[in-house]
Amino acid sequence: MAYRAPVADYRFIFRNVVDFQRVIRTERFEDADFDTCEEVLEAAGDIASNVLVPMQRHGDLEPARLENGVVRPPPRYAEGYDALVKGGWVGMAASPEFGGSGLPGSIQNAVNEFLNGACISLGLNVLLTQAQIEALSAHADENLKKLFLPKLASGEWCGTMNMTEPQAGSDVGLLTTKAVEGGGRYRITGQKILISWADADFVENVCHLVLARLPDAPSGSKGISLFLVPKRLVGEDGTLGPANAVRIVSLERKLGLHGSPTAAVQFDGAEGWLVGQPNGGLRAMFTMMNGARLGVGTQGVAIAEAAAQMAEAFAAERVQGRPLRPGGTGTVIDHADVRRSLMLMKAQVFAARSICASCAIASDFAAAGQGECWSERAALLTPVAKCFGSDTGVEVALRGIQLQGGSGYVEDSGAAQFLRDVMVTTIYEGTNGIQAMDLVGRKLADGGRTLTAMLDEINTSARERERSFPELVRRLMQAKTRFAQSAEWMAGQSDLNARFAGSRPFLRALALLLGADSHLRAFTAVEGSGPRATLAQVYFKRILPGMTVLCEEAEAGDGDLYSGDPDQPGVPAT
Amino acid sequence: MAYRAPVADYRFIFRNVVDFQRVIRTERFEDADFDTCEEVLEAAGDIASNVLVPMQRHGDLEPARLENGVVRPPPRYAEGYDALVKGGWVGMAASPEFGGSGLPGSIQNAVNEFLNGACISLGLNVLLTQAQIEALSAHADENLKKLFLPKLASGEWCGTMNMTEPQAGSDVGLLTTKAVEGGGRYRITGQKILISWADADFVENVCHLVLARLPDAPSGSKGISLFLVPKRLVGEDGTLGPANAVRIVSLERKLGLHGSPTAAVQFDGAEGWLVGQPNGGLRAMFTMMNGARLGVGTQGVAIAEAAAQMAEAFAAERVQGRPLRPGGTGTVIDHADVRRSLMLMKAQVFAARSICASCAIASDFAAAGQGECWSERAALLTPVAKCFGSDTGVEVALRGIQLQGGSGYVEDSGAAQFLRDVMVTTIYEGTNGIQAMDLVGRKLADGGRTLTAMLDEINTSARERERSFPELVRRLMQAKTRFAQSAEWMAGQSDLNARFAGSRPFLRALALLLGADSHLRAFTAVEGSGPRATLAQVYFKRILPGMTVLCEEAEAGDGDLYSGDPDQPGVPAT
Repeated sequence: MAYRAPVADYRFIFRNVVDFQRVIRTERFEDADFDTCEEVLEAAGDIASNVLVPMQRHGDLEPARLENGVVRPPPRYAEGYDALVKGGWVGMAASPEFGGSGLPGSIQNAVNEFLNGACISLGLNVLLTQAQIEALSAHADENLKKLFLPKLASGEWCGTMNMTEPQAGSDVGLLTTKAVEGGGRYRITGQKILISWADADFVENVCHLVLARLPDAPSGSKGISLFLVPKRLVGEDGTLGPANAVRIVSLERKLGLHGSPTAAVQFDGAEGWLVGQPNGGLRAMFTMMNGARLGVGTQGVAIAEAAAQMAEAFAAERVQGRPLRPGGTGTVIDHADVRRSLMLMKAQVFAARSICASCAIASDFAAAGQGECWSERAALLTPVAKCFGSDTGVEVALRGIQLQGGSGYVEDSGAAQFLRDVMVTTIYEGTNGIQAMDLVGRKLADGGRTLTAMLDEINTSARERERSFPELVRRLMQAKTRFAQSAEWMAGQSDLNARFAGSRPFLRALALLLGADSHLRAFTAVEGSGPRATLAQVYFKRILPGMTVLCEEAEAGDGDLYSGDPDQPGVPAT
Repeated sequence: MAYRAPVADYRFIFRNVVDFQRVIRTERFEDADFDTCEEVLEAAGDIASNVLVPMQRHGDLEPARLENGVVRPPPRYAEGYDALVKGGWVGMAASPEFGGSGLPGSIQNAVNEFLNGACISLGLNVLLTQAQIEALSAHADENLKKLFLPKLASGEWCGTMNMTEPQAGSDVGLLTTKAVEGGGRYRITGQKILISWADADFVENVCHLVLARLPDAPSGSKGISLFLVPKRLVGEDGTLGPANAVRIVSLERKLGLHGSPTAAVQFDGAEGWLVGQPNGGLRAMFTMMNGARLGVGTQGVAIAEAAAQMAEAFAAERVQGRPLRPGGTGTVIDHADVRRSLMLMKAQVFAARSICASCAIASDFAAAGQGECWSERAALLTPVAKCFGSDTGVEVALRGIQLQGGSGYVEDSGAAQFLRDVMVTTIYEGTNGIQAMDLVGRKLADGGRTLTAMLDEINTSARERERSFPELVRRLMQAKTRFAQSAEWMAGQSDLNARFAGSRPFLRALALLLGADSHLRAFTAVEGSGPRATLAQVYFKRILPGMTVLCEEAEAGDGDLYSGDPDQPGVPAT
């Protein structure tokens, strides 16, 4: 059975789990009524399931290649991309002023799940352009916006982000690429590596957002500026000029995501425009990165969904052993361990999807001017969505392979590709380790105010459900109380390194709590019966209990990690 | 830094964690004194680190191919295999009567970790031959032993196991391959799939152990017989004859383990010998499978070790960010989250290695005639070693990739290959789901007697350490008490399906408890100081606490898994 976009699940989540109704009642999104949005989801689901699905294996089997300096993506991608451009899917959340559809980001995020669930390598291309649109909308001057945004929103051009250099990965402050001013433009020189979709032959132009240093810039991350450097030069009237001094040096051979070219890019005095303020580049790039981070979390959810669907279809067909419960289908789906595995996959996917949706909704409220608290909420949820979404992708893909046994390990089924592809989501746009540090560092720098407000909401909403479903509500409140204790510990801990030591379990604990909140909302909406209620029960019984242990480790401090020889943690190998 | 075999860790484990000293005091192993065994480990470590290491990437880049019906393994494997043959490493535990070295299986298992840590695809070949030697030693008649064992023990010939058919994977009872008698031999006809190392051009002959049905055999697993079917016929005097009717049909394209050919094999009336009793083939094959299962768990540990070493070397060199603790190396190894990750890897590897070693030691005691309880102990520990060893392989490989960020995702480093390769260990020789069902089914069929005896030992040994290290002992006893409760629940639960529902968490909980016991032994041996003590602390603080949650789920029953529509667990996708 081929991948089917989970349109119904998003419909359910927008109706019952997140406050989408209120998003479309804001002035900003008043043109987007619920029916229209549902039609958009349906249409996107159709494109994903019908047009993009065959591209997933195709891209793996015919990886992007570098041919005489030109990147050749998998041949059939052009056809898929064309469908996305024609449908207006690239610029769906871009401002109508620049040719976008002005839809809520939460709808765009849902659509991105469908596109990436069908073909993640191509989906990434769209994601990057959308994130660039967001960054330029927020930080570029009007001239630049007018020149670039319409082409990006239409999908005629696509966008990339150029941060990493060999010595500057997670620590972007170490970068050395230079920019010098001359004649109203800037000249950029340096090499960037690990640049996703640095080139594609199915677009007219590729717009690189490049971090570089101006002369005499302060060292570290405070001396970094952002430049827009197109592959082909662009005249003041928008016409395409000759090639810029941008060269694709090589492509990486990666574990997965073979359809998406990952390049080393050489800038040899390439012409560019400054975006935002001199030495204020990181702030502008963060806009792009935050959009992309949510998108990457959603990529994780997308692959998890696809992997779970494949595993379920396999389990419903494969006959092995004698199931012990009568009345089933007689296939392995009746076996307790297989069933448990499938339900854990689905329960976790629903939790992760809801978290990504909540993050997108918070951004929508922020964009709609509903108050500073919403951009803070979005900022808090972004690392959680990125990390838990991508971890869910890996964990579900692993379960999927195992469930399918030998067939899962053989490449033909595509189960193995899911794992290879989705691994990247735990790494790019900031590794999951960095996400966790961001959560307990920057995102708790307000003393935990934003987090506490969110926890209070969980409480309030749970209370409303207490009379109907006292048992689940009790367990959610208990979990919330336990987590709040860890949150207090974190926010009150002045030793940042001790926070960092517990950052990964802390982030995961928060995700499990938020997932429980979403499952309870779902449970209530279906009045405690049917398959969604079953999933919620499974989540509360088999996933949420792990939160307590995570909270304990979150508060464990870093003492034990530094008690040995600092150069040699643990045991010498030989 | 290239892989170094963890010789010192085995030396430590044999001295302080498992009762190896008593193994070599038995009559059976009286020729194996401790010094000799240590020399064997050293020598094997040298071959692994110096000869086999380059084969790991080589096998991935130049996968085994099928050329006109002949399997061509990666070209340089012949050289590696030759070194193993010359060193006598294949038959090290085989009986001296047939040219083996008669060493304890626990030493062979340690050596296998080194070989597989250096090159798992080639290591698998040796593992399979060793497991076949074990099966033939236990079940073949004298004539067959004399004909085959010396050639297998020397490594001139190698061995395979042929169970799986398209419709018969985990449920081997569904197999349909036929065998008919004629002229003192049997003729085997049928197709087997997913056969590891079904052919290799660096050996003179390949000996297939094939499960098939005699005419009028009962249906299901009670009607299966075992046959030894060589690639080339073997005369009564041991001379090699013409090719047998065995044909390699195709090789699979797999996620990893590219150096090891995985084939579909066609038997067209191929000549074979019966091994063991007619219709008693499964019992004989289980001897081979149990040996191989421990070996596969050890493969998981091997890759985990290699992945942890690579991650640590990376962390000790890579400079990113400013570590917050003064006095370190200034590289990312000083960061709390990186340190935590490395120490979790190492603490888990030590636990998994100790479990595999305990399982091998139990087999040694059984082989040395030290009582039935030891073969029961080995049988109980086998699924735990297989499942926890392989899971550890996957989990540590994942951590390793993440720790190395973009470099980990690019194939050049070999970190990605570790994950691709080691995934198979969770699947072959019985998926980890099957292992867990085996543990709570067959292995608790004695009402939990064998398990309880082992838990009592943990108690006794912990008590001896109570005065010196009361805190860790208290936590171990607490964990043991909690687990014993789950064990009692399992053994007393007459509904087998309810046991199966909790089988995975139950197995993992047992592994975590056994790991804690091993860490406490290590902690005591180093008198609570130094890097091994640090690792033990990390394990007790950050890994063991998860056991309680696993115990809860182990006892959760299967009610929630079947409460929805049985054909459709959870939520429809669209």
